[in-house]
Amino acid sequence: MAELPLAPVKRIIKQAGAHRVSEDAVEELRDEVEDFAEERARDANDLAGHAGRKTVQADDVKASR
Amino acid sequence: MAELPLAPVKRIIKQAGAHRVSEDAVEELRDEVEDFAEERARDANDLAGHAGRKTVQADDVKASR
Repeated sequence: MAELPLAPVKRIIKQAGAHRVSEDAVEELRDEVEDFAEERARDANDLAGHAGRKTVQADDVKASR
Repeated sequence: MAELPLAPVKRIIKQAGAHRVSEDAVEELRDEVEDFAEERARDANDLAGHAGRKTVQADDVKASR
């Protein structure tokens, strides 16, 4: 399920130096970025549970690297 | 520079099964996701240039893996 909006992803590609960006490139990067975020979020959630907490904290995200 | 909004990142963490999420965890994941996006965007842009194009296409994003 796509949560992240396309406009900021397009800005990131433009800021990387792109002259022009196709819309399917923006959608592809959005989807891949979202997969990355989901994987890190699952790991962070597991680490919070492992630490006996119900709240995911920044340290859980950092440790999920 | 933060481009990605926090709300969808928070939803992604909640959908990963988190009971609660601290705001600093959301900001940490947003920052890391943005770093990931920037790196992939730079690589995709380089690959488009390498292919003699000025338009970044989905294949450039895929090949930047």
